Amino acid sequence: MSIKFDKNYFNELLNLKINKPKGQLSGHNSGEPFCEEIYKFLKKKNKISIFKQYEYLNDLLTKNKSKTTYQEREKLFPGTFGFIINRGTVSLKTWSLENKFKEKQNDTADILHINKEVNTIIDVKTKNISKKGQPPNIISSYKMAQIAECLINNDDGNKIDINYVGVDWDLNNNYLDLKEIIVKDLFLINPDTIYINWAAALQIQFDVSNVDQSYTKNKKNWAKDYLRVYIASVQNRKKILDKKFIGPFLYLVKD
Amino acid sequence: MSIKFDKNYFNELLNLKINKPKGQLSGHNSGEPFCEEIYKFLKKKNKISIFKQYEYLNDLLTKNKSKTTYQEREKLFPGTFGFIINRGTVSLKTWSLENKFKEKQNDTADILHINKEVNTIIDVKTKNISKKGQPPNIISSYKMAQIAECLINNDDGNKIDINYVGVDWDLNNNYLDLKEIIVKDLFLINPDTIYINWAAALQIQFDVSNVDQSYTKNKKNWAKDYLRVYIASVQNRKKILDKKFIGPFLYLVKD
Repeated sequence: MSIKFDKNYFNELLNLKINKPKGQLSGHNSGEPFCEEIYKFLKKKNKISIFKQYEYLNDLLTKNKSKTTYQEREKLFPGTFGFIINRGTVSLKTWSLENKFKEKQNDTADILHINKEVNTIIDVKTKNISKKGQPPNIISSYKMAQIAECLINNDDGNKIDINYVGVDWDLNNNYLDLKEIIVKDLFLINPDTIYINWAAALQIQFDVSNVDQSYTKNKKNWAKDYLRVYIASVQNRKKILDKKFIGPFLYLVKD
Repeated sequence: MSIKFDKNYFNELLNLKINKPKGQLSGHNSGEPFCEEIYKFLKKKNKISIFKQYEYLNDLLTKNKSKTTYQEREKLFPGTFGFIINRGTVSLKTWSLENKFKEKQNDTADILHINKEVNTIIDVKTKNISKKGQPPNIISSYKMAQIAECLINNDDGNKIDINYVGVDWDLNNNYLDLKEIIVKDLFLINPDTIYINWAAALQIQFDVSNVDQSYTKNKKNWAKDYLRVYIASVQNRKKILDKKFIGPFLYLVKD
């Protein structure tokens, strides 16, 4: 049964307190324990269908341990969902029961909900509400373009959801208090409102709490609209490279 | 008297041990305590001429406290060295004896040696020798282009040195052991060997331990050669944007 992971679904977590992590309260350092709590919460409610990305990959390859070549294993990752969670050729070649995947900070998904009708990718983004910072990196705009390409060519938008869980927290003595938890659907974000930070590793950046949710067309349309926005953004980046990064210095190398 | 900050100058630090910092051994978390030790070492040997960047700025503005407007203060930052250490208009406007500058992670310089003949910028880069990682971010290639422009227009290359102190360390139980300390001169790096990572915030990246030191011409020539390399790198980035980031997706938006 597919599940609607919306704001209400996470209501029980509203009074969550976690111990203040040691060291600096950096994004990763404070984000990780909240992600862990959300994972535990989801796992408790959906024991057999919730995984961390590396857990699911290990589970899938273990269940298919007779498949040992790259070509056989590659087929375990069909469609857009497969493309997103696949760690690539080298990883598939070297995986074995003795050399399973470990947790990796730059995996695309924090948490997966595996379901016959629709697989859901759940990414957790945390924010210190006392700090005014840059919106967080969400995903590489280039990876998202490849995802869009997959979605269009496989036409399997009905089989995948990508959700962002936004956790707002506040430091309270030796605790981080969860103040607000919200869920946004990637495919409800009007692509026209998406911001790509080309200097910051070409990342799509937004605050989960105030990202747009007004898109009304289907996922294939979303993918096409995203690609138009993405390509226009690359074109614009090229103009900036000329205007800001080359132009002002040309007079110094004319000899 | 100008000082040659070379490898030998730091010999005494070769048996340095620092306590393992709490939390993850990230670049910043492990780099900071080594930078602090190098600063203390230099300060002990050169009490009146060694500063952290923010200390020097506070010292300079305090000594000139009768100068209160942005225009007057701006004149305290002449030439290329002034350009590098100046935190900009807003900072100069809002500075006061009651609102002095604080240490800032993204200041260009870690440590300054102030000297009538030549001011030296000292930047500390640390490396965990047990980990094979990407070379560290050194400085924005765009900021370096602006520095090169200053150097050419002010023709004051004889008044500035930029040195990178490379610290190699290894985890040893509850300590980080300093294993090697080296010094490289920015203006001895052949600009042709400089790598700019456009995806990583347009940063120049290199390992201090194996960066080239074969350049033989003067700093004005270095600046021009750097600008040629920089401009060629931007042009190449534009080609990559077309070839890798736009080209493969164009067929999907043709309707």
